Amino acid sequence: CSRSMASKTPVGFIGLGNMGNPMAKNLIKHGYPLILYDIFPEACKDFKDGEQVVSSPADVAERADRIITMLPTSSNALEVYTGPKGILKKVKKGSLLIDSSTIDPAVSKELAKDVEKMGAVLMDSPVSGGVGAARAGNLTFMVGGPEQEFAAAKELLACMGSNVVYCGGVGTGQAAKICNNMLLAITMIGTAETMNLGIRLGLDPKLLAKILNMSSGRCWASDTYNPVPGVMDGVPSANNYQGGFGTMLMAKDLGLAQESATSTKSPVFLGGLSHQIYRMMCAKGYAQKDFSSVFQFLREEESL
Amino acid sequence: CSRSMASKTPVGFIGLGNMGNPMAKNLIKHGYPLILYDIFPEACKDFKDGEQVVSSPADVAERADRIITMLPTSSNALEVYTGPKGILKKVKKGSLLIDSSTIDPAVSKELAKDVEKMGAVLMDSPVSGGVGAARAGNLTFMVGGPEQEFAAAKELLACMGSNVVYCGGVGTGQAAKICNNMLLAITMIGTAETMNLGIRLGLDPKLLAKILNMSSGRCWASDTYNPVPGVMDGVPSANNYQGGFGTMLMAKDLGLAQESATSTKSPVFLGGLSHQIYRMMCAKGYAQKDFSSVFQFLREEESL
Amino acid sequence: CSRSMASKTPVGFIGLGNMGNPMAKNLIKHGYPLILYDIFPEACKDFKDGEQVVSSPADVAERADRIITMLPTSSNALEVYTGPKGILKKVKKGSLLIDSSTIDPAVSKELAKDVEKMGAVLMDSPVSGGVGAARAGNLTFMVGGPEQEFAAAKELLACMGSNVVYCGGVGTGQAAKICNNMLLAITMIGTAETMNLGIRLGLDPKLLAKILNMSSGRCWASDTYNPVPGVMDGVPSANNYQGGFGTMLMAKDLGLAQESATSTKSPVFLGGLSHQIYRMMCAKGYAQKDFSSVFQFLREEESL
Amino acid sequence: CSRSMASKTPVGFIGLGNMGNPMAKNLIKHGYPLILYDIFPEACKDFKDGEQVVSSPADVAERADRIITMLPTSSNALEVYTGPKGILKKVKKGSLLIDSSTIDPAVSKELAKDVEKMGAVLMDSPVSGGVGAARAGNLTFMVGGPEQEFAAAKELLACMGSNVVYCGGVGTGQAAKICNNMLLAITMIGTAETMNLGIRLGLDPKLLAKILNMSSGRCWASDTYNPVPGVMDGVPSANNYQGGFGTMLMAKDLGLAQESATSTKSPVFLGGLSHQIYRMMCAKGYAQKDFSSVFQFLREEESL
Repeated sequence: CSRSMASKTPVGFIGLGNMGNPMAKNLIKHGYPLILYDIFPEACKDFKDGEQVVSSPADVAERADRIITMLPTSSNALEVYTGPKGILKKVKKGSLLIDSSTIDPAVSKELAKDVEKMGAVLMDSPVSGGVGAARAGNLTFMVGGPEQEFAAAKELLACMGSNVVYCGGVGTGQAAKICNNMLLAITMIGTAETMNLGIRLGLDPKLLAKILNMSSGRCWASDTYNPVPGVMDGVPSANNYQGGFGTMLMAKDLGLAQESATSTKSPVFLGGLSHQIYRMMCAKGYAQKDFSSVFQFLREEESL
Repeated sequence: CSRSMASKTPVGFIGLGNMGNPMAKNLIKHGYPLILYDIFPEACKDFKDGEQVVSSPADVAERADRIITMLPTSSNALEVYTGPKGILKKVKKGSLLIDSSTIDPAVSKELAKDVEKMGAVLMDSPVSGGVGAARAGNLTFMVGGPEQEFAAAKELLACMGSNVVYCGGVGTGQAAKICNNMLLAITMIGTAETMNLGIRLGLDPKLLAKILNMSSGRCWASDTYNPVPGVMDGVPSANNYQGGFGTMLMAKDLGLAQESATSTKSPVFLGGLSHQIYRMMCAKGYAQKDFSSVFQFLREEESL
Repeated sequence: CSRSMASKTPVGFIGLGNMGNPMAKNLIKHGYPLILYDIFPEACKDFKDGEQVVSSPADVAERADRIITMLPTSSNALEVYTGPKGILKKVKKGSLLIDSSTIDPAVSKELAKDVEKMGAVLMDSPVSGGVGAARAGNLTFMVGGPEQEFAAAKELLACMGSNVVYCGGVGTGQAAKICNNMLLAITMIGTAETMNLGIRLGLDPKLLAKILNMSSGRCWASDTYNPVPGVMDGVPSANNYQGGFGTMLMAKDLGLAQESATSTKSPVFLGGLSHQIYRMMCAKGYAQKDFSSVFQFLREEESL
Repeated sequence: CSRSMASKTPVGFIGLGNMGNPMAKNLIKHGYPLILYDIFPEACKDFKDGEQVVSSPADVAERADRIITMLPTSSNALEVYTGPKGILKKVKKGSLLIDSSTIDPAVSKELAKDVEKMGAVLMDSPVSGGVGAARAGNLTFMVGGPEQEFAAAKELLACMGSNVVYCGGVGTGQAAKICNNMLLAITMIGTAETMNLGIRLGLDPKLLAKILNMSSGRCWASDTYNPVPGVMDGVPSANNYQGGFGTMLMAKDLGLAQESATSTKSPVFLGGLSHQIYRMMCAKGYAQKDFSSVFQFLREEESL
């Protein structure tokens, strides 16, 4: 975030939901004037003083040559970029488009080709970290695209995150995100199964966590985000699995991992089964709880 | 290992295989005279000068009131303790029996009851760490049994290991070991699937490992024992999966985890599937390779 | 059931629970006087007029040289045969012991060896079919043991079942039962997943069942016992999953299948996962429902 | 196939691969003149005498108002229908387009909307049965689309298949096919696991198959297409798993099932795991073998 205020030209921002809203505000804090669009006009109310709200992605592209998009699904991204009022209808040559949505890497690659035909550049840069990190400006961005454009992308992303990692060609940002979250799901379910088994075998949960964490079973899910109530403070398991990273979002990311695995013919035995487990949890009332609630899901119901 | 040499009475040691042999030698180094037995007499040849080799577990129990057993399976342990020439035929009142075998915790509990009837005490203390750690004397022991006997057990175990952890009542040593290894298997397969998927999606393996290790997917399998050749030095994946912890041993431990889960009615979705994968690998020529070779197992064969 | 009434010597029957009770009554109907024992004396009240109730398995063995046992678990069977008041304490040479319990085939083999040492013969003959079939006398018996004793066993079993199949050496009766039930669990869950997926994709459930049943997806679970309410009459899915074969019993049989697979090192990917699913269902309130209720378990909850 | 020869106007046929070729020939046998196109011109050589070969899907649409397409993947279908030289460029109002490809039902629905905008009708009608059934003209067609058009579609399809089933709105043909094949994969793997386990437990494979087939484990994979060599004649397992339905094709269909399940949020525990197993088999040299070769895959290698 080094440029002087004087040089800061407007930046487009499309998608002002739970994540996009605080991300955009951090850009404003760093002195960037924004051109805003969201499919739900109310989402822009927060920003009225000073920021321009326009009525389509195409309008954003007309007014800004750097645009950040933050959208929920692959089909939303396709619509915003290639739809009838999409960015590509009016994108200027040389524009830098940064898509922070978490979507199928194959879609990122496809979009990048379409963008390139218009003389612009697309970089995918999905985020790691939730709403809290978005507010605090310490998200992690995993960035894919042409290496020579990375510095320009980082200038903006560094206003919203504390960690901006270059991953390789376009799509590799998505790939890195998907890979991390697939392994996270596996280690979380594995930790929940293991803690539950150990407790049933008579081990004290705090002691078991301590033993795992000094041994080869150690993982982030066991040592930093333990899913068993009472083992750690300040994590969702200590707060009835509220806050954190929702089961429904994890199920979505695992769906993307599964799609990528299918299209690249990669066997994902545990990744696939983890997907099914989080899918099932969504059907059984856990959709809005933190994904560490899989520990609760595995336990026998009280009343039985 | 604080007692003076003068006070060191003989210690029994039963089971002098790949692990038992170096463990026993470390006891000797610390000044303990040993009474030895192994079902294969050749296993005792190494020890002849000075140590007494006897011809049955019962004979060991007649001559020593502290005995360590290190056996491959539950049924071997049952035979050594309760068989016709077993320890219980001649165990002295007040003896301390330490079983370092990795077996079903339910069998440990059953043996402990039989031992208690004879006025002696059994503690289970399975080890973590392979032959190298056994030689170097830095095994980890996970100990279950009466807390007031832990100090006495630790005196001996500390001669063979650098880490002696008290886990609770009898059987909890086994439980802790089984839990750790189940989670280890899950995180290892998960890491292998994730690295393979990422590579197929175009990520550089070293970079992917680095990203995982600074993110929530981090685990021992990814940051300390990465299964992908070329990512780390000094691990089995850097040496064609030789050395380390064999797939067959992991399959055995997962079989114990599965049995414990079945008998305690604990769901182990990923633990169960990991068991099947390691079982399958044993059938396909990976039995003697390090368990991180699951990465190789998942990859497409070169010639196809 | 061909012997004349005159020649019918008393038959022992141990275990008079939900299944044993109607089985024993069918023997009585065919003219066999019974010597009865159950660990719960009330279980024998039904039989008082004419039948002898004794106070231990050993007492049964003293009075009868053909004995049928019908017990819930491996450990119950071990107690009844080899316990301090067990059959083996007083079994007569030449006795024929028929165990209709569903237990681990390895335990059947072990018991058979102990029985053989006493000069008697054990055959395992687990049943297929529930309480209704037990009452109606049309159970299926799968029988393992010496072929030359099969005719003698069949004489009794044919009074209780319509189908008595010789499977091979001792333990193969259990093996056949376990194999059938493992495949049954897999095909039932598979049918439930498939019907649920098809319905969500817009297919009419009756039409989908019809298509499957004339195609290669056809199985007993789809064509005779369809798990979707409204597709068939006269099955548990038409009656809120009451009656039939309970989820808890299926989970038990899958636990036996898993144990057998582990000890024979047979990979059972789908069998293992089916075990976990039925285990989970037991923890979530489905224990007493018919095992076809897995269809209900997979569906999204109404209230969400 | 009831229309008189006189009334038979030309029918378009696009995609003349292993399946399309014999299907097209059966239409010719029934007196339909064809307008042919394949992306590989050599594929049309077989047909030269009398049939018209044209140079794009658009050209087919210009000359025929009934068109059958038989293509390997969703993206091929998108190209043939909506590509720059696709059918939709020149399709006549009132045309009947029948897509016999096996693709994602969501893609069928999407294509149908595009076709409808041009005043034509698309029906999906994937086939069941392999190259042999295509030659013999006894394929099964599962047809989705407007019910009033079914008779017209059936007129053509009945020339190529013995079984033409109406499944509901557009996409339900695909749904039925995918559902059947997912259940088929599950029951086949389940049968293979079960037969392997039973054999290791000492059962004779023919006897075990007989027991399963008269019991509740019965399924098409056990009673009509048993995967164990020596149990049945005339099936791929009797011929070193040659012929039949290739593992790679099954993996493809399971990929479609997984996609449909993900997009409809349907849990498919066994379907998902079966996908991974067939995926793995493709990576290990089984791609071209019949899908019943999963029995061979599960067995221990001879040389170990």
